[in-house]
Amino acid sequence: MIRRFPGMKWCFCVFLLAASCGVHGQAQGHEGHRWWNASLRQKQVKLEADLLRASSSEKIREDHDLFCDEPHVAGTPGDHRIIKELASSFEEMGLEPELQELHLYLPLPVEAHLSIVRGPGESGPHPGDPPVELVLQEAAVKGDPYSRHPDLTFGWNAYSGNGDVTAEVVYANRGTKEDFSRLASLGISVKGRIVIARYGGNYRGYKAKFAEEAGAAGLIIYTDPKGSGYRAGLTYPEGGYANDTYIQRGSIKTLPYQGDPLTPFEPSTENAKRLDPDSTGLPTIPVQPIGYRAAGEIISRMRGKLAPRDWHGALPFTYHLTGGPELRVRLKVVQERKIRRTANVLATMRGSKYPDQKVIIGCHFDAWTFGAGDPNAGTIVLYEAARLLMAARKQGHVFERSIVFANWAAEEQGIIGSTEYCEANRDDLVANALCYLNLDMAAMGTNFGSSSSPLLKSVIADTTGVVPQAGKLGVMVQEPWLRGQSTPRFGNLGGGSDHVGFYCHLGIPSASMGAGGSAGVSYHSNYENLAWYRKIVGDDYEPAVMVSRLVAVAGSRLSNATLLPFDPTQVPRDLSTHLSALQNRADGVGLAWPEKEAGVFSDAIVALQEASQKFLESGLQALQLDQLDAESTALMNDALMKLPRAFCLDEGLPERPWYRSFFASSDPDSGYSAWMLPALRYQVEKGNRAGLARELLRHGAMVSRLSESLTRVQAATAQKMSKN
Amino acid sequence: MIRRFPGMKWCFCVFLLAASCGVHGQAQGHEGHRWWNASLRQKQVKLEADLLRASSSEKIREDHDLFCDEPHVAGTPGDHRIIKELASSFEEMGLEPELQELHLYLPLPVEAHLSIVRGPGESGPHPGDPPVELVLQEAAVKGDPYSRHPDLTFGWNAYSGNGDVTAEVVYANRGTKEDFSRLASLGISVKGRIVIARYGGNYRGYKAKFAEEAGAAGLIIYTDPKGSGYRAGLTYPEGGYANDTYIQRGSIKTLPYQGDPLTPFEPSTENAKRLDPDSTGLPTIPVQPIGYRAAGEIISRMRGKLAPRDWHGALPFTYHLTGGPELRVRLKVVQERKIRRTANVLATMRGSKYPDQKVIIGCHFDAWTFGAGDPNAGTIVLYEAARLLMAARKQGHVFERSIVFANWAAEEQGIIGSTEYCEANRDDLVANALCYLNLDMAAMGTNFGSSSSPLLKSVIADTTGVVPQAGKLGVMVQEPWLRGQSTPRFGNLGGGSDHVGFYCHLGIPSASMGAGGSAGVSYHSNYENLAWYRKIVGDDYEPAVMVSRLVAVAGSRLSNATLLPFDPTQVPRDLSTHLSALQNRADGVGLAWPEKEAGVFSDAIVALQEASQKFLESGLQALQLDQLDAESTALMNDALMKLPRAFCLDEGLPERPWYRSFFASSDPDSGYSAWMLPALRYQVEKGNRAGLARELLRHGAMVSRLSESLTRVQAATAQKMSKN
Repeated sequence: MIRRFPGMKWCFCVFLLAASCGVHGQAQGHEGHRWWNASLRQKQVKLEADLLRASSSEKIREDHDLFCDEPHVAGTPGDHRIIKELASSFEEMGLEPELQELHLYLPLPVEAHLSIVRGPGESGPHPGDPPVELVLQEAAVKGDPYSRHPDLTFGWNAYSGNGDVTAEVVYANRGTKEDFSRLASLGISVKGRIVIARYGGNYRGYKAKFAEEAGAAGLIIYTDPKGSGYRAGLTYPEGGYANDTYIQRGSIKTLPYQGDPLTPFEPSTENAKRLDPDSTGLPTIPVQPIGYRAAGEIISRMRGKLAPRDWHGALPFTYHLTGGPELRVRLKVVQERKIRRTANVLATMRGSKYPDQKVIIGCHFDAWTFGAGDPNAGTIVLYEAARLLMAARKQGHVFERSIVFANWAAEEQGIIGSTEYCEANRDDLVANALCYLNLDMAAMGTNFGSSSSPLLKSVIADTTGVVPQAGKLGVMVQEPWLRGQSTPRFGNLGGGSDHVGFYCHLGIPSASMGAGGSAGVSYHSNYENLAWYRKIVGDDYEPAVMVSRLVAVAGSRLSNATLLPFDPTQVPRDLSTHLSALQNRADGVGLAWPEKEAGVFSDAIVALQEASQKFLESGLQALQLDQLDAESTALMNDALMKLPRAFCLDEGLPERPWYRSFFASSDPDSGYSAWMLPALRYQVEKGNRAGLARELLRHGAMVSRLSESLTRVQAATAQKMSKN
Repeated sequence: MIRRFPGMKWCFCVFLLAASCGVHGQAQGHEGHRWWNASLRQKQVKLEADLLRASSSEKIREDHDLFCDEPHVAGTPGDHRIIKELASSFEEMGLEPELQELHLYLPLPVEAHLSIVRGPGESGPHPGDPPVELVLQEAAVKGDPYSRHPDLTFGWNAYSGNGDVTAEVVYANRGTKEDFSRLASLGISVKGRIVIARYGGNYRGYKAKFAEEAGAAGLIIYTDPKGSGYRAGLTYPEGGYANDTYIQRGSIKTLPYQGDPLTPFEPSTENAKRLDPDSTGLPTIPVQPIGYRAAGEIISRMRGKLAPRDWHGALPFTYHLTGGPELRVRLKVVQERKIRRTANVLATMRGSKYPDQKVIIGCHFDAWTFGAGDPNAGTIVLYEAARLLMAARKQGHVFERSIVFANWAAEEQGIIGSTEYCEANRDDLVANALCYLNLDMAAMGTNFGSSSSPLLKSVIADTTGVVPQAGKLGVMVQEPWLRGQSTPRFGNLGGGSDHVGFYCHLGIPSASMGAGGSAGVSYHSNYENLAWYRKIVGDDYEPAVMVSRLVAVAGSRLSNATLLPFDPTQVPRDLSTHLSALQNRADGVGLAWPEKEAGVFSDAIVALQEASQKFLESGLQALQLDQLDAESTALMNDALMKLPRAFCLDEGLPERPWYRSFFASSDPDSGYSAWMLPALRYQVEKGNRAGLARELLRHGAMVSRLSESLTRVQAATAQKMSKN
């Protein structure tokens, strides 16, 4: 399934180690090395010390220059050019790039127009006056040459329907499910009207979905200054926040599966069998993103019912729900959807002992404009981590399992490249992929954070104990991350980036790793360029150095650990947390909690706690005593690899069969947040107590089977060791 | 001390009852009539039924027209004209007006100027450009002829210093004590600079006091759209909230006493001995109030350190703390302070049985402009209540104790007229005044509320049970006021209006009564006129009818009750609440609570609970059985009259000897809110544990003496009754 672009040639050049940028710290993480047997532990300690010694912010900066040179939306010439750059960069460090060619159903913008046709009363134009044309592209900014790049376009929402409508307007707050319900309960119809909604609260695709379902003629989405503009901080170029012409581009595809809209479950090869585009449920109404200057022109002219207090943004007037018949807006959107060519760019550092087993580290490369933040603040980390690991190998260090570095195509249009990769390599990945680490926008500040599936929390937390914190001498990443707590806080991994195919479709343990906290927003705009990044995130690339080291060390641990560094006791801990949250949610929506069935599930979780504890302790103890032979190690590692697959069922989730993980999924009503134990959550949201009770029993059985298998393996290895 | 203006003649004309506006309800309040002996109870019930039957919104509307005809700042010709109108209105209803002539040290505005001399960088004017002149008066508004009245002036803060300064600016949030501390802790000096602060959070006088103490060269106070402008609701004239030229005028006098600044403790007669004005501590720096359009011109040009997140208002830019040296503002204020003549206008409905004993009901009449809200939404209630009571007397109803209707002068400059009245009539008031009811702005909506000293809570709460709610057929005021609770919530009465002299200086039980809730703000602006009031509060005068009835019924109860309707058991209840709040405050500021001494006070409160309960029960029981003879009644009433005086000490509060009530005072750091048990609070704020312990013991002794005197009277009357 992995093809090469014709006309590219691959060479295997030896990566020359760039000048080290100094040693900030020494690996201290004994805790992190408990997964090694005594003979290999010292080698790993030495490897990590070498990894931490070699890091070059200059090289990272060069990569950033290279990857952010021009706008490169998926399917455009800029996209094709960056694919070559990415492949060449792998080659430079001695990796052989592989391209997975993709033939994707992608839109590109053709035309957009927005104007106020008639304004109300004395404060707006009179009938017969010329319309007020609204500007749909960011203003060029002094001191930012990128903002004048000729390939930049007006703002657009990918997969908008085409249309040219003139209608009254309705303000729908953030356009969430609740917001549309509230409008309805206030007796306000959006039917045949153009909805205007602000960004935030959900994935923009759901704003479009709910607007279309409610009968709207079109949708305008704008960035309110409350969350992202002058109310958050100084605006660009004085500061980093959204100025009044900033526009957040983005896809509005919402389908019950990720990836190419025409090839669910299957890879988008040139001759793949495709769905009829009209049957997929892609948006049909015109949808247009705008900045707050343009939005203010419309909203300030509205004269109907006042918006509820909590619906007000930070524009300098009182917000209304309706514009009234005097205020008519014309919205025209033309996009061309067709099959366009792009490719994933991957490279593998082959494992010396278990070449089939692979740790996958990835980040998409496509961008709405230059992508200096999204995604390239992650791409530079991916390349620097690869460089660190390749340099270590060059120094003679050994990596037992393979590490795959992956650049994903067309994430922005709906997590497409990575999904197609998962669909193309399903069996191999299910059998051999240890985990997936996602780096999208990984270096946007100095505050480290991670969302993770339970098995990866331990290795990530341990790694932060040995990598120096950016900008703080003598402090490890873990210290500020802990913020005074005894254990670091992880987010729940849900939707929103390239882990979804791995985690939610295939059940492969996944995590996002990255650092944020810089004061600004250029997300998906024409300002997401190097001038913005270097002014707002910084010019020293310390965040990228920090996260690259974390990724390299964590990657090496996953590659080399004798016993896979997956702490199985985290699974029942997380299950227990999620079950409690679910019960709270049921209380919140007034659903009587099925105590008995929940008790069955809860008992199974307690049993798993015991089984996993015993499994872990016996494994670690044997390692400590150097009593774990190769066969037992393989048996235990196999059990750890299979553990997360216990929560995957081929039938998939109700109404969303592509989502196979019963542990986690994206939230089907907002897109960005996570549903944990999603089959249970589904029944709670439906208010179906019988369905919930049935699912609780099934989950109990699922967990019990897992306990049994862990116990079986533990017993077998214990028996074997006692014989030795 | 009560004088008449020369040249006015008084006639006693019989008030002709205007057409009744229908009966909305019938007095049901048996609870409220427990203070009567059987023979008089029926008369009172009949009286109240008659009071509720007679009410005329047309007459109220005429009064409003009359009182809001022109701007009438204290000391101006408009002020002198309204004094005549008020007196004539009393005469019309058959009351003989009395005038207390006052000679007050009052300022009037002469000139004000505000401009931006130099703006920063490219976004402002260049050096040498002409200054940006800022407009200091409200824009005239279409459909509001009052907004064009020729006597309206630019905005001003009474008692501003005179000056003409040009300096850099510093933003000080709301200019509270904490805000200035925070600026200092951020290393920002206001010395020699012009401070700009938004309204809210404290009495504006404290903004000026703290700015001057910190060395500021001047102060600009503006109304931010967050609390009062477009973020609160539609702005005038579309809605009722502050538009961008609205200016809140107001006094900035903050002295340790109320009333005329030159005659503390004594009335401001023509030949009174006066302090040297320069010795009083009146402001010396120029202080200017402005609207948010003008404020935005300045704040949007600031370029220094960013303001903390919670300091941001709702203007459409990021707020800064400093303007930097490039931004220089010129502020010029000229006012003329001198002795000016005005008068309080009073009228007394003499009591048939106890003419010396008096219930005082009052509202000031002076206004910054027309005063349609502040104060005349209360003045119309005062006159309607007087009319209702006079009509009842004309019908033959008897009022045993006197009721005094009072219009106070020069409240706006610092509660001056009412204070001078209290100082002129101190001995009589202490001996004979039952209570003071304040009606400032009493009819601003339909939501009734009250702040009250403990003794008056019962009579007010009972009265709301018999008066119909405005705008809701068949519902009494009490029902919405209760909001589902079993007892209504009263506010703590502190500073801010004409009750201060009565309550805090003389210890006379006081309460504010009024209804609010309309959607708008015209407070102290050129828009505080009839056009605004009738559009925003309403044109039906139902709120004024409702509150007038409440005041008339409550006044009649206080006038006629056999046993004074003062529930003494409320005193220990309130003391207990205030002591708990004080302990929380001590915890909050980290002061170790003197458990032992607090226990002494607390025990005394418990003893008072028992003593007051026994006193009340025996009195009410005797009434019920018609066993309370005249002598016992007098004895008990005398005890009830003296009860609140137990909390008054001639020495006054620490640092504020004019404030003699140890039960309640205004907050000396914010002005508007209340300090309950202020001598204790003072020690808490000082962090003086020894002082607090000493005061707690003194308060314990104070309360114990009160219990003893109640017990003594109760025993004496019980003995007497058992003999009968």
